Amino acid sequence: MFNQVTIIGCGLIGSSIFKRLKKAGSIKKLITYDKDETVTEVIKKDKLSDEIFDKPSEAVKNSDLIVIATPISSLESVLSSIKGNLKNGSILTDTCSVKKRVSKIFKNVNLKSSICIPGHPVAGTENSGPKSGNTDLFQNRWTILTPDENINEQDIKKVSKFWESMGSKVKIMTAENHDKILSFTSHLPHAIAYNIVQTSMANDDKTKDEIIRYSAGGLRDFTRIAASDPIMWRDIFIDNSSLIIEGIDKFIKNLDEFKKAIAEKDSKKLLEIFKKSKEFRKSIVEAGQDTDKPDFGRK
Amino acid sequence: MFNQVTIIGCGLIGSSIFKRLKKAGSIKKLITYDKDETVTEVIKKDKLSDEIFDKPSEAVKNSDLIVIATPISSLESVLSSIKGNLKNGSILTDTCSVKKRVSKIFKNVNLKSSICIPGHPVAGTENSGPKSGNTDLFQNRWTILTPDENINEQDIKKVSKFWESMGSKVKIMTAENHDKILSFTSHLPHAIAYNIVQTSMANDDKTKDEIIRYSAGGLRDFTRIAASDPIMWRDIFIDNSSLIIEGIDKFIKNLDEFKKAIAEKDSKKLLEIFKKSKEFRKSIVEAGQDTDKPDFGRK
Repeated sequence: MFNQVTIIGCGLIGSSIFKRLKKAGSIKKLITYDKDETVTEVIKKDKLSDEIFDKPSEAVKNSDLIVIATPISSLESVLSSIKGNLKNGSILTDTCSVKKRVSKIFKNVNLKSSICIPGHPVAGTENSGPKSGNTDLFQNRWTILTPDENINEQDIKKVSKFWESMGSKVKIMTAENHDKILSFTSHLPHAIAYNIVQTSMANDDKTKDEIIRYSAGGLRDFTRIAASDPIMWRDIFIDNSSLIIEGIDKFIKNLDEFKKAIAEKDSKKLLEIFKKSKEFRKSIVEAGQDTDKPDFGRK
Repeated sequence: MFNQVTIIGCGLIGSSIFKRLKKAGSIKKLITYDKDETVTEVIKKDKLSDEIFDKPSEAVKNSDLIVIATPISSLESVLSSIKGNLKNGSILTDTCSVKKRVSKIFKNVNLKSSICIPGHPVAGTENSGPKSGNTDLFQNRWTILTPDENINEQDIKKVSKFWESMGSKVKIMTAENHDKILSFTSHLPHAIAYNIVQTSMANDDKTKDEIIRYSAGGLRDFTRIAASDPIMWRDIFIDNSSLIIEGIDKFIKNLDEFKKAIAEKDSKKLLEIFKKSKEFRKSIVEAGQDTDKPDFGRK
Protein backbone atom coordinates (compact mmCIF):
# COMPACT_ATOMS: atom_id res chain seq x y z
CA MET A 1 0.00 0.00 0.00
CA PHE A 2 1.21 3.50 0.78
CA ASN A 3 4.28 4.26 2.86
CA GLN A 4 3.28 7.70 4.02
CA VAL A 5 -0.26 9.09 4.17
CA THR A 6 -1.39 12.64 4.93
CA ILE A 7 -4.89 13.45 6.11
CA ILE A 8 -5.93 17.08 5.65
CA GLY A 9 -9.07 17.90 7.61
CA CYS A 10 -9.59 15.80 10.73
CA GLY A 11 -13.33 15.90 11.35
CA LEU A 12 -15.64 12.88 11.49
CA ILE A 13 -14.43 11.41 8.18
CA GLY A 14 -10.73 12.35 8.42
CA SER A 15 -10.44 11.10 11.97
CA SER A 16 -12.26 7.85 11.18
CA ILE A 17 -9.69 7.26 8.44
CA PHE A 18 -6.63 7.84 10.60
CA LYS A 19 -8.02 5.93 13.55
CA ARG A 20 -8.52 2.92 11.28
CA LEU A 21 -5.06 3.38 9.72
CA LYS A 22 -3.47 3.51 13.17
CA LYS A 23 -5.35 0.42 14.29
CA ALA A 24 -4.38 -1.56 11.17
CA GLY A 25 -0.76 -0.41 11.37
CA SER A 26 -0.52 -0.82 7.61
CA ILE A 27 1.42 2.31 6.76
CA LYS A 28 4.82 3.58 7.85
CA LYS A 29 3.93 7.15 8.64
CA LEU A 30 0.70 9.03 9.21
CA ILE A 31 0.64 12.81 9.00
CA THR A 32 -2.29 15.06 9.84
CA TYR A 33 -3.26 18.67 9.40
CA ASP A 34 -6.32 20.59 10.52
CA LYS A 35 -6.74 24.36 10.45
CA ASP A 36 -8.63 24.24 13.76
CA GLU A 37 -6.24 24.24 16.72
CA THR A 38 -8.71 22.56 19.08
CA VAL A 39 -8.88 19.65 16.63
CA THR A 40 -5.10 19.42 16.54
CA GLU A 41 -5.02 19.41 20.33
CA VAL A 42 -7.31 16.36 20.48
CA ILE A 43 -5.12 14.48 17.99
CA LYS A 44 -1.97 15.38 19.90
CA LYS A 45 -3.42 14.43 23.26
CA ASP A 46 -4.69 11.07 22.04
CA LYS A 47 -1.51 10.40 19.99
CA LEU A 48 -3.56 9.67 16.89
CA SER A 49 -1.00 10.94 14.37
CA ASP A 50 2.73 10.33 13.84
CA GLU A 51 3.32 13.94 12.94
CA ILE A 52 1.14 17.05 13.06
CA PHE A 53 1.89 20.08 10.90
CA ASP A 54 0.41 23.54 11.15
CA LYS A 55 0.56 24.14 7.40
CA PRO A 56 -0.93 21.83 4.75
CA SER A 57 2.02 22.60 2.47
CA GLU A 58 4.40 21.07 5.06
CA ALA A 59 2.11 18.14 5.83
CA VAL A 60 2.13 16.73 2.28
CA LYS A 61 5.90 16.58 1.71
CA ASN A 62 7.05 13.04 0.78
CA SER A 63 3.55 11.57 1.21
CA ASP A 64 2.37 8.91 -1.23
CA LEU A 65 -1.32 9.47 -0.55
CA ILE A 66 -3.02 12.70 0.46
CA VAL A 67 -6.63 12.47 1.62
CA ILE A 68 -8.38 15.82 1.71
CA ALA A 69 -11.31 15.44 4.08
CA THR A 70 -12.29 19.10 4.40
CA PRO A 71 -15.60 20.61 3.33
CA ILE A 72 -15.56 21.29 -0.41
CA SER A 73 -15.40 25.05 0.13
CA SER A 74 -11.84 24.61 1.47
CA LEU A 75 -10.64 22.25 -1.27
CA GLU A 76 -9.38 24.82 -3.75
CA SER A 77 -7.34 26.76 -1.21
CA VAL A 78 -5.85 23.57 0.23
CA LEU A 79 -4.81 22.42 -3.24
CA SER A 80 -3.25 25.78 -4.09
CA SER A 81 -1.20 25.78 -0.92
CA ILE A 82 0.10 22.19 -1.27
CA LYS A 83 0.65 22.36 -5.04
CA GLY A 84 4.39 23.13 -4.93
CA ASN A 85 5.26 20.51 -2.27
CA LEU A 86 3.72 17.32 -3.59
CA LYS A 87 5.87 14.28 -4.16
CA ASN A 88 6.19 13.18 -7.78
CA GLY A 89 3.62 10.46 -8.53
CA SER A 90 1.71 11.01 -5.30
CA ILE A 91 -2.01 10.34 -5.29
CA LEU A 92 -4.60 12.84 -4.08
CA THR A 93 -8.12 11.96 -3.13
CA ASP A 94 -10.96 13.70 -1.30
CA THR A 95 -14.12 12.68 0.59
CA CYS A 96 -16.62 15.31 -0.55
CA SER A 97 -20.27 14.44 -1.15
CA VAL A 98 -20.42 16.07 -4.59
CA LYS A 99 -18.05 14.97 -7.33
CA LYS A 100 -18.56 17.06 -10.49
CA ARG A 101 -17.42 20.16 -8.68
CA VAL A 102 -14.42 18.33 -7.19
CA SER A 103 -13.32 17.15 -10.66
CA LYS A 104 -13.56 20.72 -11.88
CA ILE A 105 -11.48 22.02 -8.98
CA PHE A 106 -8.81 19.34 -9.50
CA LYS A 107 -8.68 20.27 -13.20
CA ASN A 108 -8.47 24.00 -12.49
CA VAL A 109 -5.61 23.65 -10.03
CA ASN A 110 -3.80 21.38 -12.50
CA LEU A 111 -1.38 19.34 -10.40
CA LYS A 112 0.99 18.11 -13.07
CA SER A 113 3.01 15.45 -11.30
CA SER A 114 0.31 14.08 -8.97
CA ILE A 115 -2.70 11.91 -9.70
CA CYS A 116 -6.14 13.11 -8.60
CA ILE A 117 -8.83 10.51 -7.91
CA PRO A 118 -12.01 12.00 -6.40
CA GLY A 119 -13.76 9.80 -3.85
CA HIS A 120 -16.78 9.73 -1.57
CA PRO A 121 -17.27 7.32 1.32
CA VAL A 122 -21.07 7.08 1.69
CA ALA A 123 -20.91 6.94 5.47
CA GLY A 124 -21.27 9.29 8.37
CA THR A 125 -23.18 10.14 11.49
CA GLU A 126 -24.83 13.33 12.68
CA ASN A 127 -21.76 14.13 14.78
CA SER A 128 -18.71 16.12 13.77
CA GLY A 129 -15.11 16.50 14.90
CA PRO A 130 -12.18 14.17 15.67
CA LYS A 131 -13.79 12.73 18.79
CA SER A 132 -16.71 11.40 16.70
CA GLY A 133 -14.48 9.44 14.34
CA ASN A 134 -14.41 5.67 14.74
CA THR A 135 -12.61 2.78 13.09
CA ASP A 136 -15.85 1.13 11.92
CA LEU A 137 -17.45 4.10 10.20
CA PHE A 138 -16.79 2.72 6.71
CA GLN A 139 -17.42 -0.95 7.50
CA ASN A 140 -19.75 -2.44 4.85
CA ARG A 141 -20.47 1.00 3.45
CA TRP A 142 -19.73 1.97 -0.14
CA THR A 143 -17.01 4.32 -1.26
CA ILE A 144 -17.53 5.77 -4.73
CA LEU A 145 -14.53 6.81 -6.82
CA THR A 146 -15.01 9.06 -9.84
CA PRO A 147 -11.64 9.14 -11.67
CA ASP A 148 -11.33 10.88 -15.02
CA GLU A 149 -10.96 8.69 -18.10
CA ASN A 150 -7.23 9.40 -18.45
CA ILE A 151 -6.39 8.00 -14.99
CA ASN A 152 -4.22 4.91 -14.90
CA GLU A 153 -6.00 1.67 -13.90
CA GLN A 154 -3.27 0.83 -11.38
CA ASP A 155 -3.60 4.13 -9.55
CA ILE A 156 -7.35 3.60 -9.24
CA LYS A 157 -6.64 0.16 -7.82
CA LYS A 158 -4.35 1.63 -5.18
CA VAL A 159 -7.06 4.00 -3.95
CA SER A 160 -9.65 1.20 -4.11
CA LYS A 161 -7.44 -1.00 -1.94
CA PHE A 162 -6.97 1.85 0.48
CA TRP A 163 -10.74 2.15 0.95
CA GLU A 164 -11.13 -1.60 1.17
CA SER A 165 -8.61 -1.51 4.00
CA MET A 166 -11.07 0.90 5.71
CA GLY A 167 -13.72 -1.85 5.58
CA SER A 168 -15.47 -0.23 2.63
CA LYS A 169 -16.77 -1.66 -0.63
CA VAL A 170 -15.66 0.34 -3.67
CA LYS A 171 -17.55 1.37 -6.78
CA ILE A 172 -16.20 3.34 -9.75
CA MET A 173 -18.59 5.62 -11.62
CA THR A 174 -18.70 8.95 -13.40
CA ALA A 175 -18.95 12.15 -11.38
CA GLU A 176 -22.22 12.91 -13.21
CA ASN A 177 -23.81 9.63 -12.17
CA HIS A 178 -22.54 10.00 -8.60
CA ASP A 179 -24.11 13.42 -8.23
CA LYS A 180 -27.42 12.21 -9.66
CA ILE A 181 -27.66 9.12 -7.41
CA LEU A 182 -26.55 11.00 -4.30
CA SER A 183 -29.08 13.75 -4.98
CA PHE A 184 -31.73 11.06 -4.35
CA THR A 185 -30.07 9.08 -1.58
CA SER A 186 -28.59 11.87 0.47
CA HIS A 187 -29.09 15.46 -0.69
CA LEU A 188 -32.87 15.39 -1.17
CA PRO A 189 -33.42 13.54 2.15
CA HIS A 190 -31.34 16.17 3.93
CA ALA A 191 -33.26 19.01 2.24
CA ILE A 192 -36.49 17.43 3.37
CA ALA A 193 -35.26 16.75 6.89
CA TYR A 194 -34.25 20.39 7.35
CA ASN A 195 -37.61 21.55 6.08
CA ILE A 196 -39.76 19.29 8.19
CA VAL A 197 -37.88 20.61 11.20
CA GLN A 198 -38.48 24.17 9.91
CA THR A 199 -42.19 23.40 9.56
CA SER A 200 -42.39 22.07 13.10
CA MET A 201 -40.48 25.02 14.51
CA ALA A 202 -42.83 27.54 12.88
CA ASN A 203 -45.27 27.12 15.77
CA ASP A 204 -45.78 28.93 19.05
CA ASP A 205 -43.56 27.88 21.99
CA LYS A 206 -46.21 25.72 23.68
CA THR A 207 -46.89 23.77 20.49
CA LYS A 208 -43.15 23.44 19.81
CA ASP A 209 -42.62 21.96 23.28
CA GLU A 210 -45.39 19.45 22.65
CA ILE A 211 -43.95 18.57 19.24
CA ILE A 212 -40.59 17.82 20.89
CA ARG A 213 -42.28 15.74 23.59
CA TYR A 214 -44.23 13.57 21.13
CA SER A 215 -41.58 13.42 18.42
CA ALA A 216 -41.19 9.65 18.79
CA GLY A 217 -44.15 9.24 16.43
CA GLY A 218 -41.83 9.70 13.45
CA LEU A 219 -40.38 13.21 13.47
CA ARG A 220 -37.34 12.31 15.60
CA ASP A 221 -36.04 10.06 12.81
CA PHE A 222 -35.71 13.07 10.50
CA THR A 223 -34.00 15.28 13.05
CA ARG A 224 -30.93 13.05 13.18
CA ILE A 225 -29.70 13.93 9.70
CA ALA A 226 -30.95 17.48 10.17
CA ALA A 227 -28.23 17.75 12.84
CA SER A 228 -25.41 17.09 10.37
CA ASP A 229 -22.50 19.47 9.88
CA PRO A 230 -23.86 22.85 8.65
CA ILE A 231 -20.82 23.98 6.60
CA MET A 232 -20.59 20.65 4.80
CA TRP A 233 -24.26 20.74 3.93
CA ARG A 234 -24.27 24.35 2.82
CA ASP A 235 -21.49 23.41 0.38
CA ILE A 236 -23.36 20.35 -0.91
CA PHE A 237 -26.60 22.23 -1.54
CA ILE A 238 -24.79 25.01 -3.38
CA ASP A 239 -22.51 22.70 -5.39
CA ASN A 240 -25.18 20.22 -6.49
CA SER A 241 -27.98 22.77 -6.63
CA SER A 242 -29.47 22.02 -10.03
CA LEU A 243 -29.93 18.29 -9.42
CA ILE A 244 -31.23 18.90 -5.90
CA ILE A 245 -33.74 21.48 -7.16
CA GLU A 246 -34.82 18.99 -9.82
CA GLY A 247 -35.32 16.38 -7.08
CA ILE A 248 -37.26 18.80 -4.88
CA ASP A 249 -39.57 19.60 -7.80
CA LYS A 250 -40.26 15.91 -8.46
CA PHE A 251 -40.86 15.36 -4.76
CA ILE A 252 -43.31 18.27 -4.49
CA LYS A 253 -45.20 16.90 -7.50
CA ASN A 254 -45.54 13.54 -5.75
CA LEU A 255 -46.61 15.20 -2.53
CA ASP A 256 -49.29 17.18 -4.36
CA GLU A 257 -50.70 13.96 -5.82
CA PHE A 258 -50.60 12.37 -2.38
CA LYS A 259 -52.50 15.34 -0.96
CA LYS A 260 -55.14 14.81 -3.62
CA ALA A 261 -55.38 11.11 -2.72
CA ILE A 262 -55.92 12.00 0.95
CA ALA A 263 -58.51 14.67 0.15
CA GLU A 264 -60.39 12.24 -2.10
CA LYS A 265 -60.06 9.39 0.43
CA ASP A 266 -58.51 7.32 -2.35
CA SER A 267 -57.88 4.22 -0.27
CA LYS A 268 -56.67 2.13 -3.22
CA LYS A 269 -54.02 4.60 -4.28
CA LEU A 270 -52.80 5.13 -0.71
CA LEU A 271 -52.52 1.40 0.00
CA GLU A 272 -50.60 0.92 -3.26
CA ILE A 273 -48.06 3.60 -2.28
CA PHE A 274 -47.65 2.14 1.22
CA LYS A 275 -47.21 -1.40 -0.08
CA LYS A 276 -44.53 -0.32 -2.53
CA SER A 277 -42.76 1.67 0.19
CA LYS A 278 -42.61 -1.42 2.39
CA GLU A 279 -41.00 -3.35 -0.47
CA PHE A 280 -38.47 -0.59 -1.05
CA ARG A 281 -37.48 -0.67 2.62
CA LYS A 282 -37.09 -4.44 2.35
CA SER A 283 -34.73 -4.03 -0.62
CA ILE A 284 -32.56 -1.63 1.37
CA VAL A 285 -32.31 -4.05 4.30
CA GLU A 286 -31.61 -6.96 1.94
CA ALA A 287 -28.86 -4.92 0.26
CA GLY A 288 -27.20 -4.69 3.68
CA GLN A 289 -27.68 -0.93 3.78
CA ASP A 290 -29.75 -0.83 6.96
CA THR A 291 -30.34 -2.95 10.03
CA ASP A 292 -33.31 -5.33 10.09
CA LYS A 293 -33.79 -4.65 13.79
CA PRO A 294 -37.06 -2.82 14.51
CA ASP A 295 -36.71 0.88 15.21
CA PHE A 296 -33.04 0.76 14.04
CA GLY A 297 -32.35 -1.33 17.16
CA ARG A 298 -32.49 1.95 19.06
CA LYS A 299 -32.88 1.95 22.87
CA MET B 1 -56.09 -1.90 39.10
CA PHE B 2 -58.36 -3.93 36.87
CA ASN B 3 -59.37 -7.51 37.59
CA GLN B 4 -60.12 -8.57 34.05
CA VAL B 5 -58.78 -6.94 30.90
CA THR B 6 -59.75 -7.64 27.28
CA ILE B 7 -57.50 -6.73 24.37
CA ILE B 8 -59.25 -6.52 21.00
CA GLY B 9 -56.77 -6.43 18.12
CA CYS B 10 -53.49 -8.17 18.81
CA GLY B 11 -51.02 -6.51 16.44
CA LEU B 12 -47.87 -4.66 17.46
CA ILE B 13 -49.62 -2.43 20.02
CA GLY B 14 -52.15 -4.95 21.36
CA SER B 15 -49.56 -7.68 21.79
CA SER B 16 -47.09 -5.32 23.45
CA ILE B 17 -49.80 -4.51 25.98
CA PHE B 18 -50.68 -8.11 26.85
CA LYS B 19 -47.06 -9.23 26.92
CA ARG B 20 -46.35 -6.51 29.48
CA LEU B 21 -49.51 -7.37 31.44
CA LYS B 22 -48.51 -11.05 31.53
CA LYS B 23 -45.00 -10.18 32.65
CA ALA B 24 -46.21 -7.88 35.42
CA GLY B 25 -48.87 -10.36 36.58
CA SER B 26 -50.90 -7.42 37.83
CA ILE B 27 -54.34 -8.53 36.65
CA LYS B 28 -56.41 -11.62 37.38
CA LYS B 29 -57.52 -12.49 33.89
CA LEU B 30 -56.40 -11.47 30.41
CA ILE B 31 -58.68 -12.07 27.45
CA THR B 32 -57.80 -11.50 23.81
CA TYR B 33 -59.59 -11.36 20.49
CA ASP B 34 -58.26 -10.88 16.97
CA LYS B 35 -60.21 -11.38 13.77
CA ASP B 36 -57.16 -12.87 12.07
CA GLU B 37 -56.87 -16.60 12.84
CA THR B 38 -53.10 -16.70 12.22
CA VAL B 39 -52.74 -14.05 14.95
CA THR B 40 -54.85 -16.11 17.34
CA GLU B 41 -52.69 -19.15 16.59
CA VAL B 42 -49.53 -17.30 17.64
CA ILE B 43 -51.15 -16.22 20.91
CA LYS B 44 -52.41 -19.73 21.61
CA LYS B 45 -49.07 -21.34 20.81
CA ASP B 46 -47.09 -18.94 22.99
CA LYS B 47 -49.72 -19.00 25.78
CA LEU B 48 -49.92 -15.23 25.82
CA SER B 49 -53.58 -14.99 26.85
CA ASP B 50 -55.69 -16.57 29.60
CA GLU B 51 -58.63 -16.96 27.27
CA ILE B 52 -59.09 -16.44 23.56
CA PHE B 53 -62.52 -15.81 22.03
CA ASP B 54 -63.52 -15.88 18.40
CA LYS B 55 -66.10 -13.12 18.81
CA PRO B 56 -65.43 -9.69 20.35
CA SER B 57 -68.91 -9.75 21.92
CA GLU B 58 -67.90 -12.83 23.94
CA ALA B 59 -64.44 -11.50 24.77
CA VAL B 60 -65.70 -8.43 26.64
CA LYS B 61 -68.08 -10.12 29.07
CA ASN B 62 -67.25 -9.27 32.72
CA SER B 63 -64.14 -7.32 31.76
CA ASP B 64 -63.30 -4.15 33.68
CA LEU B 65 -61.10 -2.67 30.98
CA ILE B 66 -61.39 -3.17 27.24
CA VAL B 67 -58.50 -1.96 25.09
CA ILE B 68 -59.38 -1.74 21.41
CA ALA B 69 -56.10 -1.84 19.52
CA THR B 70 -57.46 -2.30 16.00
CA PRO B 71 -57.03 0.15 13.11
CA ILE B 72 -59.60 2.92 13.40
CA SER B 73 -61.55 1.62 10.40
CA SER B 74 -62.61 -1.38 12.53
CA LEU B 75 -63.49 0.57 15.67
CA GLU B 76 -67.14 1.26 14.88
CA SER B 77 -68.00 -2.32 14.00
CA VAL B 78 -66.17 -3.63 17.08
CA LEU B 79 -68.13 -1.24 19.32
CA SER B 80 -71.44 -2.19 17.73
CA SER B 81 -70.79 -5.86 18.26
CA ILE B 82 -69.68 -5.58 21.91
CA LYS B 83 -72.27 -2.96 22.89
CA GLY B 84 -74.80 -5.35 24.41
CA ASN B 85 -72.29 -7.42 26.43
CA LEU B 86 -70.33 -4.81 28.32
CA LYS B 87 -70.12 -4.95 32.10
CA ASN B 88 -71.75 -2.07 33.91
CA GLY B 89 -69.12 0.57 34.73
CA SER B 90 -66.48 -1.00 32.53
CA ILE B 91 -63.93 1.30 30.89
CA LEU B 92 -63.18 1.30 27.17
CA THR B 93 -60.07 2.75 25.62
CA ASP B 94 -58.37 2.58 22.23
CA THR B 95 -54.89 3.11 20.83
CA CYS B 96 -55.61 4.90 17.53
CA SER B 97 -53.34 7.66 16.25
CA VAL B 98 -56.19 10.12 15.63
CA LYS B 99 -58.48 11.15 18.42
CA LYS B 100 -61.20 13.51 17.15
CA ARG B 101 -62.62 10.76 14.95
CA VAL B 102 -62.46 8.25 17.84
CA SER B 103 -64.41 10.60 20.13
CA LYS B 104 -67.03 10.96 17.43
CA ILE B 105 -67.32 7.20 16.99
CA PHE B 106 -67.61 6.65 20.76
CA LYS B 107 -70.35 9.29 20.87
CA ASN B 108 -72.23 7.83 17.91
CA VAL B 109 -72.26 4.32 19.32
CA ASN B 110 -73.43 5.72 22.67
CA LEU B 111 -72.43 3.10 25.24
CA LYS B 112 -74.61 4.09 28.13
CA SER B 113 -73.25 2.09 31.02
CA SER B 114 -69.55 2.08 30.06
CA ILE B 115 -66.96 4.85 30.19
CA CYS B 116 -65.03 5.70 27.02
CA ILE B 117 -61.57 7.24 27.38
CA PRO B 118 -59.75 7.56 24.06
CA GLY B 119 -55.98 7.01 24.23
CA HIS B 120 -52.88 6.97 22.07
CA PRO B 121 -49.54 5.48 23.08
CA VAL B 122 -46.99 7.41 20.98
CA ALA B 123 -44.83 4.37 20.39
CA GLY B 124 -44.31 1.77 17.71
CA THR B 125 -41.90 0.26 15.27
CA GLU B 126 -42.12 -0.39 11.54
CA ASN B 127 -43.14 -4.01 12.25
CA SER B 128 -46.66 -5.39 12.65
CA GLY B 129 -48.29 -8.45 14.19
CA PRO B 130 -48.21 -10.23 17.56
CA LYS B 131 -44.64 -11.47 17.12
CA SER B 132 -43.40 -7.87 16.91
CA GLY B 133 -44.90 -6.88 20.23
CA ASN B 134 -42.55 -6.44 23.18
CA THR B 135 -42.87 -5.58 26.85
CA ASP B 136 -40.69 -2.45 26.53
CA LEU B 137 -42.48 -0.78 23.62
CA PHE B 138 -44.06 1.88 25.84
CA GLN B 139 -41.14 2.39 28.21
CA ASN B 140 -40.44 6.14 28.61
CA ARG B 141 -42.82 6.95 25.76
CA TRP B 142 -45.86 9.16 26.17
CA THR B 143 -49.45 8.00 26.13
CA ILE B 144 -51.97 10.72 25.44
CA LEU B 145 -55.51 10.44 26.78
CA THR B 146 -58.29 12.62 25.39
CA PRO B 147 -61.33 12.11 27.64
CA ASP B 148 -64.43 14.21 27.13
CA GLU B 149 -65.16 16.90 29.73
CA ASN B 150 -67.92 14.88 31.40
CA ILE B 151 -65.62 11.96 32.26
CA ASN B 152 -65.03 11.30 35.95
CA GLU B 153 -61.54 12.18 37.25
CA GLN B 154 -61.20 8.80 38.97
CA ASP B 155 -61.86 6.87 35.79
CA ILE B 156 -59.22 8.89 33.97
CA LYS B 157 -56.81 8.09 36.80
CA LYS B 158 -57.49 4.38 36.39
CA VAL B 159 -56.57 4.47 32.71
CA SER B 160 -53.54 6.66 33.44
CA LYS B 161 -52.31 4.14 36.01
CA PHE B 162 -52.84 1.35 33.51
CA TRP B 163 -50.55 3.09 30.99
CA GLU B 164 -48.03 3.93 33.69
CA SER B 165 -47.92 0.21 34.47
CA MET B 166 -46.92 -0.21 30.79
CA GLY B 167 -43.87 1.99 31.47
CA SER B 168 -45.46 4.97 29.80
CA LYS B 169 -45.77 8.60 30.86
CA VAL B 170 -49.31 9.93 30.56
CA LYS B 171 -50.61 13.27 29.32
CA ILE B 172 -54.23 14.44 29.18
CA MET B 173 -55.23 16.81 26.40
CA THR B 174 -58.13 17.59 24.08
CA ALA B 175 -58.67 15.46 20.99
CA GLU B 176 -58.26 18.62 18.89
CA ASN B 177 -54.85 19.41 20.34
CA HIS B 178 -53.75 15.78 20.03
CA ASP B 179 -54.59 15.67 16.34
CA LYS B 180 -52.81 18.96 15.69
CA ILE B 181 -49.60 17.98 17.51
CA LEU B 182 -49.54 14.49 16.01
CA SER B 183 -50.05 15.91 12.51
CA PHE B 184 -46.59 17.51 12.99
CA THR B 185 -44.81 14.77 14.91
CA SER B 186 -46.11 11.72 13.12
CA HIS B 187 -48.57 12.18 10.25
CA LEU B 188 -46.61 14.75 8.23
CA PRO B 189 -43.32 12.82 8.68
CA HIS B 190 -45.01 9.67 7.41
CA ALA B 191 -46.53 11.51 4.41
CA ILE B 192 -43.08 12.82 3.57
CA ALA B 193 -41.38 9.48 4.07
CA TYR B 194 -43.80 7.77 1.68
CA ASN B 195 -43.25 10.47 -0.90
CA ILE B 196 -39.49 10.52 -0.80
CA VAL B 197 -39.60 6.78 -1.40
CA GLN B 198 -42.05 7.41 -4.28
CA THR B 199 -39.68 9.99 -5.74
CA SER B 200 -36.74 7.58 -5.56
CA MET B 201 -38.74 4.75 -7.10
CA ALA B 202 -39.77 6.87 -10.09
CA ASN B 203 -36.47 6.09 -11.79
CA ASP B 204 -35.31 3.40 -14.21
CA ASP B 205 -34.31 0.04 -12.73
CA LYS B 206 -30.54 0.67 -12.91
CA THR B 207 -30.86 3.99 -11.08
CA LYS B 208 -33.23 2.44 -8.53
CA ASP B 209 -30.68 -0.29 -7.78
CA GLU B 210 -28.00 2.33 -7.26
CA ILE B 211 -30.29 4.36 -5.02
CA ILE B 212 -30.84 1.29 -2.84
CA ARG B 213 -27.11 0.56 -2.72
CA TYR B 214 -26.13 4.08 -1.62
CA SER B 215 -29.15 4.71 0.60
CA ALA B 216 -26.99 4.99 3.73
CA GLY B 217 -26.39 8.64 2.84
CA GLY B 218 -29.73 9.55 4.45
CA LEU B 219 -32.59 7.97 2.50
CA ARG B 220 -32.59 4.73 4.51
CA ASP B 221 -33.66 6.65 7.64
CA PHE B 222 -36.92 7.65 5.93
CA THR B 223 -37.72 4.19 4.63
CA ARG B 224 -38.14 2.77 8.14
CA ILE B 225 -41.34 4.63 8.90
CA ALA B 226 -42.43 4.23 5.27
CA ALA B 227 -42.61 0.51 6.05
CA SER B 228 -45.28 0.97 8.73
CA ASP B 229 -48.61 -0.84 8.62
CA PRO B 230 -50.50 0.23 5.44
CA ILE B 231 -54.08 -0.15 6.75
CA MET B 232 -53.33 1.83 9.88
CA TRP B 233 -51.76 4.63 7.89
CA ARG B 234 -54.48 4.77 5.27
CA ASP B 235 -56.94 5.29 8.15
CA ILE B 236 -54.83 8.01 9.75
CA PHE B 237 -54.42 9.99 6.52
CA ILE B 238 -58.11 9.82 5.78
CA ASP B 239 -59.26 10.58 9.34
CA ASN B 240 -56.92 13.49 9.99
CA SER B 241 -56.84 14.69 6.39
CA SER B 242 -57.52 18.39 6.84
CA LEU B 243 -54.74 18.95 9.42
CA ILE B 244 -52.32 16.80 7.42
CA ILE B 245 -53.07 18.70 4.20
CA GLU B 246 -52.54 21.95 6.11
CA GLY B 247 -49.17 20.61 7.30
CA ILE B 248 -48.17 19.50 3.80
CA ASP B 249 -48.97 22.97 2.45
CA LYS B 250 -46.83 24.65 5.12
CA PHE B 251 -44.04 22.18 4.42
CA ILE B 252 -44.14 22.78 0.65
CA LYS B 253 -44.00 26.54 1.27
CA ASN B 254 -40.85 26.06 3.38
CA LEU B 255 -39.34 23.78 0.77
CA ASP B 256 -39.97 26.37 -1.96
CA GLU B 257 -38.15 29.00 0.09
CA PHE B 258 -35.32 26.55 0.67
CA LYS B 259 -35.09 25.92 -3.08
CA LYS B 260 -34.79 29.65 -3.61
CA ALA B 261 -32.00 29.85 -1.01
CA ILE B 262 -30.09 27.10 -2.81
CA ALA B 263 -30.59 28.66 -6.25
CA GLU B 264 -29.41 32.02 -4.93
CA LYS B 265 -26.50 30.41 -3.03
CA ASP B 266 -27.80 32.16 0.10
CA SER B 267 -25.17 30.79 2.46
CA LYS B 268 -26.34 32.86 5.42
CA LYS B 269 -29.93 31.65 5.23
CA LEU B 270 -28.90 28.01 4.76
CA LEU B 271 -26.49 28.09 7.72
CA GLU B 272 -29.19 29.65 9.88
CA ILE B 273 -31.65 26.85 9.03
CA PHE B 274 -29.04 24.14 9.68
CA LYS B 275 -27.99 25.65 12.99
CA LYS B 276 -31.58 25.81 14.20
CA SER B 277 -32.19 22.22 13.08
CA LYS B 278 -29.22 21.06 15.14
CA GLU B 279 -30.68 22.79 18.19
CA PHE B 280 -34.07 21.19 17.60
CA ARG B 281 -32.49 17.75 17.46
CA LYS B 282 -30.68 18.53 20.71
CA SER B 283 -34.01 19.41 22.38
CA ILE B 284 -35.50 16.07 21.31
CA VAL B 285 -32.55 14.13 22.73
CA GLU B 286 -32.64 16.20 25.93
CA ALA B 287 -36.37 15.51 26.27
CA GLY B 288 -35.49 11.80 26.32
CA GLN B 289 -37.34 11.22 23.05
CA ASP B 290 -34.37 9.87 21.09
CA THR B 291 -31.04 8.24 21.79
CA ASP B 292 -27.91 10.39 21.93
CA LYS B 293 -25.89 7.63 20.34
CA PRO B 294 -24.65 8.57 16.85
CA ASP B 295 -26.60 7.05 13.97
CA PHE B 296 -29.30 5.87 16.46
CA GLY B 297 -26.70 3.43 17.82
CA ARG B 298 -27.44 1.31 14.75
CA LYS B 299 -25.01 -1.44 13.71
